[in-house]
Amino acid sequence: MLSICRDAQIIDVSHTVRKYAIADGAFILRSALPFMPIGVHVGVVDPGVGTDRRPIGIRAGRGDILIGPDNGLLLPAADALGGAAEARELSNRDLWLAATTATFHGRDVFAPVAAHLAAADVPFEAIGPVVAVADLVRLAPHVASVEDGRIETEVTYVDSFGNLRLAGGRGDLMTAFGDAEDGDRFTVTVGSELAGTATFARSFGHVAGGSMLLYVDSSGDLALADNRADLGARIGAVAGDPVRIERA
Amino acid sequence: MLSICRDAQIIDVSHTVRKYAIADGAFILRSALPFMPIGVHVGVVDPGVGTDRRPIGIRAGRGDILIGPDNGLLLPAADALGGAAEARELSNRDLWLAATTATFHGRDVFAPVAAHLAAADVPFEAIGPVVAVADLVRLAPHVASVEDGRIETEVTYVDSFGNLRLAGGRGDLMTAFGDAEDGDRFTVTVGSELAGTATFARSFGHVAGGSMLLYVDSSGDLALADNRADLGARIGAVAGDPVRIERA
Amino acid sequence: MLSICRDAQIIDVSHTVRKYAIADGAFILRSALPFMPIGVHVGVVDPGVGTDRRPIGIRAGRGDILIGPDNGLLLPAADALGGAAEARELSNRDLWLAATTATFHGRDVFAPVAAHLAAADVPFEAIGPVVAVADLVRLAPHVASVEDGRIETEVTYVDSFGNLRLAGGRGDLMTAFGDAEDGDRFTVTVGSELAGTATFARSFGHVAGGSMLLYVDSSGDLALADNRADLGARIGAVAGDPVRIERA
Repeated sequence: MLSICRDAQIIDVSHTVRKYAIADGAFILRSALPFMPIGVHVGVVDPGVGTDRRPIGIRAGRGDILIGPDNGLLLPAADALGGAAEARELSNRDLWLAATTATFHGRDVFAPVAAHLAAADVPFEAIGPVVAVADLVRLAPHVASVEDGRIETEVTYVDSFGNLRLAGGRGDLMTAFGDAEDGDRFTVTVGSELAGTATFARSFGHVAGGSMLLYVDSSGDLALADNRADLGARIGAVAGDPVRIERA
Repeated sequence: MLSICRDAQIIDVSHTVRKYAIADGAFILRSALPFMPIGVHVGVVDPGVGTDRRPIGIRAGRGDILIGPDNGLLLPAADALGGAAEARELSNRDLWLAATTATFHGRDVFAPVAAHLAAADVPFEAIGPVVAVADLVRLAPHVASVEDGRIETEVTYVDSFGNLRLAGGRGDLMTAFGDAEDGDRFTVTVGSELAGTATFARSFGHVAGGSMLLYVDSSGDLALADNRADLGARIGAVAGDPVRIERA
Repeated sequence: MLSICRDAQIIDVSHTVRKYAIADGAFILRSALPFMPIGVHVGVVDPGVGTDRRPIGIRAGRGDILIGPDNGLLLPAADALGGAAEARELSNRDLWLAATTATFHGRDVFAPVAAHLAAADVPFEAIGPVVAVADLVRLAPHVASVEDGRIETEVTYVDSFGNLRLAGGRGDLMTAFGDAEDGDRFTVTVGSELAGTATFARSFGHVAGGSMLLYVDSSGDLALADNRADLGARIGAVAGDPVRIERA
């Protein structure tokens, strides 16, 4: 990228996304990018590299451009940046490396296209033809539902602390339980296993070390953690696991 | 940070500090920062985020500013940068993100305050009121003591190679043993276990592969290592373990 | 480095090279650097730090300068950057930190020398006297040989996906098998163990999840992978393992 855009400021959001976990990469991008300056963002979690999955660029409402594979990775971030205003398939090979390979589009296609855009060498329209946003691959949405005084939700991401990020937010707490107060107790089931009783708290240190808490995370979503311990490892939770929350 | 200070040079010293290990973070900051240009340094190992632990800034004698939680993380670095000249509690919310959360002060409080300072938008005094340096949380000091021709010390940090960094330096070798010469042999006990016999050497390759050495590390402190192997894993050592060194 | 060269653009290619694995570091440098702008590159995998192994600089044909230990780490990258045009031993202590240690030449010697060169404070000639390129330590070359319709090669690197990079390229496929077509099947032995049957494919997603493929990687070399799985972990392969490829 620096060969094309000599004064690029390159920020490495993460090189430790779980292998092949498109939804994990999507979570990280949609969580981080709204806090970045408007810019060109490259995302690559790309098990389909070199197959017929499309390489794409998305222009978001806020003005950012997202570059990567059309496999669902980029759309949640585009949604968080004001919505996907326009999408284009990368097909202008003048913006790629001269020689490309079938297994490293991050280096050969995505990074150079992004660098040309960052350098403002070319307009967004130059990357390739428009594709309908509705035709882009979209990951199954994470859903929380409320019924009979309980929340049925799912793990959207297990973070590096082993905290379980969940679909749903404070609105679901209101609907299910008439909100939650600090210290309220909830029974939590993950998959078919009882994970234990969580105390509702604003942050980790409000419960004892090793104790489970239910909280509203830094994205405004529900989350579960063991204070100063790794809940994900304790119960073997992975993204996609169903979660049930009921008053204890 | 780039949204506030567009031309910041951001150096990621580490994002792999052991979870919740405030003393590990403190070790890294005090080891690394004296080799950095004078600047604004953000440190976040913050198990108490969102509780009543204070967010603070410290101005060091050299001119650096340290931003992070008041839990002991920052003071050793301040000491290494000429001493903590002044401390202030972060309370000026104009310098924070507009919306803050209880679990991510790194993003919502520490990073934006640091960026405003780096951009020189505001003086250090603007971050909040003075707090007495003596009132800041300070980690228990690591100590080495010499008696009866032996050094009693402790593991201050287990580095990524599994090398054990210890409290104390060459002065303690002088006091305990009348110094040490290359090739001298020492019996090492970590916790209640005999770790083996270490050869005093200037660097790793002066002993055989897999052999233990005692050396003066790159911070001037005593340290133990297995050449080309992981001593910490071999003996299960962790920071805080007591260490005894005697002539073999 | 920023203390010496205030406007350096510092790119962290990797801080996760396998400990003591000089050949792994050499693989990463020779794979990555040809895609970087001409610059000053520091490489440190240095189990011999503080012994009599030499600290060196190499000027490559393309104009890059490589700085690091004379243990084989740098020469493959120099070869990939137009060849090693000139080598010098680092001996000009004016370019080092004022105080140096025996265990951290990355900080005390390599980084400051590189920063002075990046800042163009001094010419390459200033770092120290010429040493003959032929006298530099060179890793044993990775070799592929073809006989009786089979390729005998070796693992040059196990990447973060667990894919096995091999010595040899498409030319060896031509010689051994009269080339390979998508879908051709090959029996693969790693060490003395049958690893299974690999399908020749252009990229991972052209075979079923968990199935093994033989492909030409992003450096033009032969490689083996399990699609969406970790082949290296499955068969316990490490760099240097012999590999035999025959038509199934």
